[in-house]
Amino acid sequence: MFMHNKRLQYTVRVAEPNPRLATMMLEQFGGADGELAAAMRYFTQGLGEDDPGRKDLLLDIATEELSHLEVIGSIVAMLNKGVKASLAEGAMAEAELYREIGASGVSAKEALLFGGGPALIDSAGTPWTAAYVDSRSEPTADLRSNIAAESRAKIVYERLINITDDPGIKEALGFLMTREIAHQKSFEKALYAIEDNFPSGKLPGVAAYASAYVNASQGAGDMAGPWNSGEQWDLIDGADVAKPMDGGDGTATVGLGSDDRRVAEAMKARTMSDPSANPTTGADLGAGPGAGRTSEGDLGGAADIKDAVKMAREMPVPN
Amino acid sequence: MFMHNKRLQYTVRVAEPNPRLATMMLEQFGGADGELAAAMRYFTQGLGEDDPGRKDLLLDIATEELSHLEVIGSIVAMLNKGVKASLAEGAMAEAELYREIGASGVSAKEALLFGGGPALIDSAGTPWTAAYVDSRSEPTADLRSNIAAESRAKIVYERLINITDDPGIKEALGFLMTREIAHQKSFEKALYAIEDNFPSGKLPGVAAYASAYVNASQGAGDMAGPWNSGEQWDLIDGADVAKPMDGGDGTATVGLGSDDRRVAEAMKARTMSDPSANPTTGADLGAGPGAGRTSEGDLGGAADIKDAVKMAREMPVPN
Amino acid sequence: MFMHNKRLQYTVRVAEPNPRLATMMLEQFGGADGELAAAMRYFTQGLGEDDPGRKDLLLDIATEELSHLEVIGSIVAMLNKGVKASLAEGAMAEAELYREIGASGVSAKEALLFGGGPALIDSAGTPWTAAYVDSRSEPTADLRSNIAAESRAKIVYERLINITDDPGIKEALGFLMTREIAHQKSFEKALYAIEDNFPSGKLPGVAAYASAYVNASQGAGDMAGPWNSGEQWDLIDGADVAKPMDGGDGTATVGLGSDDRRVAEAMKARTMSDPSANPTTGADLGAGPGAGRTSEGDLGGAADIKDAVKMAREMPVPN
Amino acid sequence: MFMHNKRLQYTVRVAEPNPRLATMMLEQFGGADGELAAAMRYFTQGLGEDDPGRKDLLLDIATEELSHLEVIGSIVAMLNKGVKASLAEGAMAEAELYREIGASGVSAKEALLFGGGPALIDSAGTPWTAAYVDSRSEPTADLRSNIAAESRAKIVYERLINITDDPGIKEALGFLMTREIAHQKSFEKALYAIEDNFPSGKLPGVAAYASAYVNASQGAGDMAGPWNSGEQWDLIDGADVAKPMDGGDGTATVGLGSDDRRVAEAMKARTMSDPSANPTTGADLGAGPGAGRTSEGDLGGAADIKDAVKMAREMPVPN
Amino acid sequence: MFMHNKRLQYTVRVAEPNPRLATMMLEQFGGADGELAAAMRYFTQGLGEDDPGRKDLLLDIATEELSHLEVIGSIVAMLNKGVKASLAEGAMAEAELYREIGASGVSAKEALLFGGGPALIDSAGTPWTAAYVDSRSEPTADLRSNIAAESRAKIVYERLINITDDPGIKEALGFLMTREIAHQKSFEKALYAIEDNFPSGKLPGVAAYASAYVNASQGAGDMAGPWNSGEQWDLIDGADVAKPMDGGDGTATVGLGSDDRRVAEAMKARTMSDPSANPTTGADLGAGPGAGRTSEGDLGGAADIKDAVKMAREMPVPN
Amino acid sequence: MFMHNKRLQYTVRVAEPNPRLATMMLEQFGGADGELAAAMRYFTQGLGEDDPGRKDLLLDIATEELSHLEVIGSIVAMLNKGVKASLAEGAMAEAELYREIGASGVSAKEALLFGGGPALIDSAGTPWTAAYVDSRSEPTADLRSNIAAESRAKIVYERLINITDDPGIKEALGFLMTREIAHQKSFEKALYAIEDNFPSGKLPGVAAYASAYVNASQGAGDMAGPWNSGEQWDLIDGADVAKPMDGGDGTATVGLGSDDRRVAEAMKARTMSDPSANPTTGADLGAGPGAGRTSEGDLGGAADIKDAVKMAREMPVPN
Repeated sequence: MFMHNKRLQYTVRVAEPNPRLATMMLEQFGGADGELAAAMRYFTQGLGEDDPGRKDLLLDIATEELSHLEVIGSIVAMLNKGVKASLAEGAMAEAELYREIGASGVSAKEALLFGGGPALIDSAGTPWTAAYVDSRSEPTADLRSNIAAESRAKIVYERLINITDDPGIKEALGFLMTREIAHQKSFEKALYAIEDNFPSGKLPGVAAYASAYVNASQGAGDMAGPWNSGEQWDLIDGADVAKPMDGGDGTATVGLGSDDRRVAEAMKARTMSDPSANPTTGADLGAGPGAGRTSEGDLGGAADIKDAVKMAREMPVPN
Repeated sequence: MFMHNKRLQYTVRVAEPNPRLATMMLEQFGGADGELAAAMRYFTQGLGEDDPGRKDLLLDIATEELSHLEVIGSIVAMLNKGVKASLAEGAMAEAELYREIGASGVSAKEALLFGGGPALIDSAGTPWTAAYVDSRSEPTADLRSNIAAESRAKIVYERLINITDDPGIKEALGFLMTREIAHQKSFEKALYAIEDNFPSGKLPGVAAYASAYVNASQGAGDMAGPWNSGEQWDLIDGADVAKPMDGGDGTATVGLGSDDRRVAEAMKARTMSDPSANPTTGADLGAGPGAGRTSEGDLGGAADIKDAVKMAREMPVPN
Repeated sequence: MFMHNKRLQYTVRVAEPNPRLATMMLEQFGGADGELAAAMRYFTQGLGEDDPGRKDLLLDIATEELSHLEVIGSIVAMLNKGVKASLAEGAMAEAELYREIGASGVSAKEALLFGGGPALIDSAGTPWTAAYVDSRSEPTADLRSNIAAESRAKIVYERLINITDDPGIKEALGFLMTREIAHQKSFEKALYAIEDNFPSGKLPGVAAYASAYVNASQGAGDMAGPWNSGEQWDLIDGADVAKPMDGGDGTATVGLGSDDRRVAEAMKARTMSDPSANPTTGADLGAGPGAGRTSEGDLGGAADIKDAVKMAREMPVPN
Repeated sequence: MFMHNKRLQYTVRVAEPNPRLATMMLEQFGGADGELAAAMRYFTQGLGEDDPGRKDLLLDIATEELSHLEVIGSIVAMLNKGVKASLAEGAMAEAELYREIGASGVSAKEALLFGGGPALIDSAGTPWTAAYVDSRSEPTADLRSNIAAESRAKIVYERLINITDDPGIKEALGFLMTREIAHQKSFEKALYAIEDNFPSGKLPGVAAYASAYVNASQGAGDMAGPWNSGEQWDLIDGADVAKPMDGGDGTATVGLGSDDRRVAEAMKARTMSDPSANPTTGADLGAGPGAGRTSEGDLGGAADIKDAVKMAREMPVPN
Repeated sequence: MFMHNKRLQYTVRVAEPNPRLATMMLEQFGGADGELAAAMRYFTQGLGEDDPGRKDLLLDIATEELSHLEVIGSIVAMLNKGVKASLAEGAMAEAELYREIGASGVSAKEALLFGGGPALIDSAGTPWTAAYVDSRSEPTADLRSNIAAESRAKIVYERLINITDDPGIKEALGFLMTREIAHQKSFEKALYAIEDNFPSGKLPGVAAYASAYVNASQGAGDMAGPWNSGEQWDLIDGADVAKPMDGGDGTATVGLGSDDRRVAEAMKARTMSDPSANPTTGADLGAGPGAGRTSEGDLGGAADIKDAVKMAREMPVPN
Repeated sequence: MFMHNKRLQYTVRVAEPNPRLATMMLEQFGGADGELAAAMRYFTQGLGEDDPGRKDLLLDIATEELSHLEVIGSIVAMLNKGVKASLAEGAMAEAELYREIGASGVSAKEALLFGGGPALIDSAGTPWTAAYVDSRSEPTADLRSNIAAESRAKIVYERLINITDDPGIKEALGFLMTREIAHQKSFEKALYAIEDNFPSGKLPGVAAYASAYVNASQGAGDMAGPWNSGEQWDLIDGADVAKPMDGGDGTATVGLGSDDRRVAEAMKARTMSDPSANPTTGADLGAGPGAGRTSEGDLGGAADIKDAVKMAREMPVPN
């Protein structure tokens, strides 16, 4: 059960309205690493968790993230306060309002659709989606996802701090950023409090494939490091990379019954392509003798793109 | 630059077609933790990376994940081979085909829209979205995201193994699952090969808030653990949880110019609600004297929901 | 600031696990009219609201909706408890697990991706999106949206009650449904506590168009009712429907400068279609003399679709 | 069956091209409260409706909204006419075109992807989604949704009028805005022409919970109003808010069979966290002795965020 | 199986960083007609294809499109190189950074969320979705989709060339554009190498409807052309357009069992609207005697929208 | 301007209700190739088109597609008529209703959320998105997209015909399928009525790259056909595939100013990975000595996945 207290978890002092900065702050309100994503990640995990310690931890932090959602949303509301009222009251000249809200698509949407209220969109105007929430009901995976999410959220706050010079906002963002660091520490402790946490889940891997490193990207720039060299690793390199790792022929087959086989053959025959044809095509029909294209069917004598652009610019208007 | 060899990285032997199982396999083809998400996560990181070792690592694994996408997609294609041809050729009786593909919404869509080909949707038919890709251009965050993503992918493969009894599929899934374990190990090595990797980014946290643990969820079930107790933590508990952490008054304010203030006041006045009114509302107008509702404006004498359901079932048809 | 108490707002007693029913309950967890949509609708409005009475109301109900989200999520968690553990522990035979989770695409996704935890998807597996949240920062519009949203949520709960025979779930759903009724009443009172609430906003309509009713759908079935007849309405009917309502010529024009006009003409000329041509097309090339199609280029003698299907079934396999 | 007449329902006179204004107009073409959303809301309701009066009404207004979609789309086409041709013909210098279309992300997309044609995206470039359509097949809910939708659309038009000073556009928007007012009046009449329309649906609420108001958000700012006080309401306040409303213990339970119970126990044991551990974590490993961080594992001596930013800026480049 | 070589398929020389241009280039990285869409369209078709020639073709081009994805992504990375490092290192003054990234919503998101790395979003910040991929497992349809997709991609590259004056970028875009032309030619050849490719699929059309052209949009502007006139066409015109084409009554009916019929009647009766009522509505309650609205319930004497705006601006603030 | 006539363009006779079949029909109502996608594709093109012939054509067909949307939606409404009323009236036993609607996730959503009304979702429950609409304002590209779209829609109708044995539905689907064939023919004529239609747009390709075919997928299965051989093609094969096509070094570079270069170096240094380290990682910490894993840090002696599964099943419950 949730309760709410009308005070914020952190006092917000915004120096002056700035609708464009408001839309940037939305990144942490309705964005991929924003506070709603955080709150919902932990809340859904907490609901399904049976371990009492982790359940408590997840609900504590989920609840705090809701309070953070309120802090960042309040910053947005303050930054929009001027434009919101002006728009509602028609109190500025049209041209002035237009300039104010039109700096970018997202501030236009923030003003026109949301009227300056905090909206669950990101800094480009994309609505929040639960596709951001990666809870999977396996604690050793979920805690790693939480660690990563806190690490990402920390970075986004750091970037917002780097572009803001309003001291009150900077301070509040510093608080929010720091809390992400603290949450990451908690999730790290909870992960390692599970004794046997790697690999996640219950099934061990197949030994033959667990230590192989496939050098799938070759050429100048190949490097050795602890992630592909040393005694933990067997390197698959050079032409071996193009061989099936199971030693088989690398094909895919399925056992079809005789009915299925017959129908599959019929389909194949019906849609068969004739590799020996040289058919006239729609493109052949359409490659007209127009300006800038030679009639041999190739794409013209344009030596390079600069010539092509020049040629296109000078193309005479057909009558 | 990419090259392709027509052999698969792992030989696929499917015992017999099964379109419903095919749709479950789609989870790792076009799903949130599937192989396209993996390939695109590492590929976008690799493109933007300047550290030569990590760049190499990311492109190696991105490329391998594309090969895995091909393996899982080939399994889907094999499982659908029968239904695909039958549907195209109209070779089964309607009722039989309908039964075959109608087992779930997603197998209907797989058959009707995609014709049995491997589609970039998940096991519930939702199209793949780049919202799954959490690359952030900060290696200490990205590597943590990669570790978490591999851990999640491992679990989904484990679950698929647990519901499949086709030995050829099981074997191929075991290979794919194991590779995720190996990839996680590589990303772990790469993370810890960055000397100072916590917290992510460059800005340190604010000391005053970095060690606080907020017991925001209270009541029976409160637990102590290494994530909230011990010398690394200062516990905020009880009524202190409802106090702003900065010691301020917990309000949000913005400095408005006099014009803005005047317009904001006008808007407030115009949309003011009158708390002393007791207006007749649309609901009052619409709460008719119908069956099961008393005329006193409350919602009836239904002692509980069972009575309410019974009452609704017996509601006479109005004339 | 939010606080959480580990007790639910309503005690949940589920008789036995049922993963398929669980996925139906998701409609009110992560669906369009579910509790997250409700909580976020009111929360975002509350953050931006300046009227103290409405702000209080919105935050009260937003908070309660979060508690409802927890109740419905707990029902989902209970219904999935068996399948979740069996899947994680590999404790059932594959075929049995497959049957259990394969009843629908969404229960497959719930099991395979989310491991049986409550996920922010709807009953068809679509992730929750903030596109469901229609807060617009204008109280007379927002309160109407809230009234409508509560009315919709009430209906979805009613439908869930109608398909459930677990008495504990039915009871909890009855509670949740009733709270939506109570919330609607509150929002109705708040709307009518704004003295002048229709039309929304500040701009009056243009008198000439405000009372017109356009009978745009004509023919058998035309009806008169208070929505189009009586002294509040001027009916536009018959052929008048096809006339521009402003009395103009119904065209769209723009004033182009001479440069723009010249370029627009060039584009028009370049992409001009020749209405007097009778060109051979790609379809003409491709309409081969195959089975079931006459060679005259029309689509064959199939008198009706039954013949066409029969003809297609009997189409000989080409060699 | 639909027919179309090439004249618009309202004559459109645009003074001069303006691609940036065009993207703002898209809010009512492909946005959440735009004309496609309106047309599809009423059309889907009309198709499923059995009451002859409402069916007629819904199809009348759905059809008119399609005509409005055409009006607003024609405004967009006119505003883009210059940039569309210039882009297609390569008729401006690159830098000039870049400036013209690059004012915001959405006008870039409008130009680059859609070539200046009217696209079903909103003013921030998000594609229209049927998630905006909230038809639910229950007339008392649907009509409330329609009333709310018209009210929202009216407001968005009002905001567009407030930012536009092209008189021809302003006039056309005024027409469209006024029609939304008229439509709201029709839907209101239709709602109240259903005698017993509150609550929606057939099931009455449970009396015990129908009049309770939960003061879930407490503290300075608590207000009384007709929405929570007076004889229609029973107030739940103070500490009572944290008590389960059913008088139970507020837990969630499920009856598990013995097999399920055994497996659930096994899972719990396997993933148990050890609250008495104080494990070394990945964060402990990664919290290096770098600049700006003390070696005691806390996050440094940064007194506040300003110091932290300064410290980060001065951080020496490692060798 | 895929392999990767660290060299690009085309050498990229970017003159100088430009984060705003970078976001425009994203259109071909993560946009609807971008390279990921192309690669995935052909790759999913290739996996499911049984004809050896087409399978080879599809995998060849799918692989090349992945190389193109790398080229365009590298352009984005280069254009962002300056802002990425400055943001990460906090190396510019806040106001300067803010200006740099704030030019549009999408460049803000590119910087704040993605840190300047190439992200799978389009030029307006919308995440890539597999809804763009229209593979349907029927080669005559898929090849037409591929032809169309190449044609669209060609155009978007042409537009990008038209707005870019960096010669290195222009040259690389010219290469990519030309490859789309070559790919279209290949797909055209493959389509016409299927002897009988129109109409797609196996079922012939019903002769009675295959040559009809319905003049559904009438009025000034009606034109004749080869698409609706000549011996291939039967024109349905004038009032005939409004007649059901099957000669029936144009109604929809279903055979209901007696139980279903009885329940449907009950529902109809319960939700029946009373066309003879003239109910007071919520709008009637809310249409207060405010400024600018007459008390007769109409919407005021505003002769036109200019008066309405003026009236609204002068509306006195209520007390 | 649109007008509507209450008769359908094709008379619909449904034999009996079938909610599961209804959800399959949704593929052509709210699916990717459904009638709304068709109508909106042509309508948006028509609005922006300046060529009078094509404008007329596009509006004719757009309007007809709206009539088709009505036909397919009416089929859905008829198929759902029984379940809709039963659900609304609570007229069946819970278990029976549950069985009826629970056949798939999408039929659950259709019933629970949409109440059996036709909804703009596809056969897997995904909401319609304008991402399906590929209008690009270039007629030679748009007409190709239209040809492809008609071809796809034809196929989906053919598949629906193949799974339906209700004669009335089959007949209506046959009509709709045939109209797609006719529309394709019209769009083909319109494309080839543009004299010079290949390549699309104005810019010619660069000759050097226009005839190259890159054999990017090599190995057994390489084929020759008219799409890669013959005099129109220059084959790039073997090791040449891995060489940059421009003859350059295949790297990407950008000209950075000295400030940018300095900051980029600082970032690189700060986030440098140490390839010579062999750090202990989180995975090393977490790879506990649990059941089924050897203590050497590798993943155990599981010879293959069958053993691994067996081992996991027998894993003792830890205490």
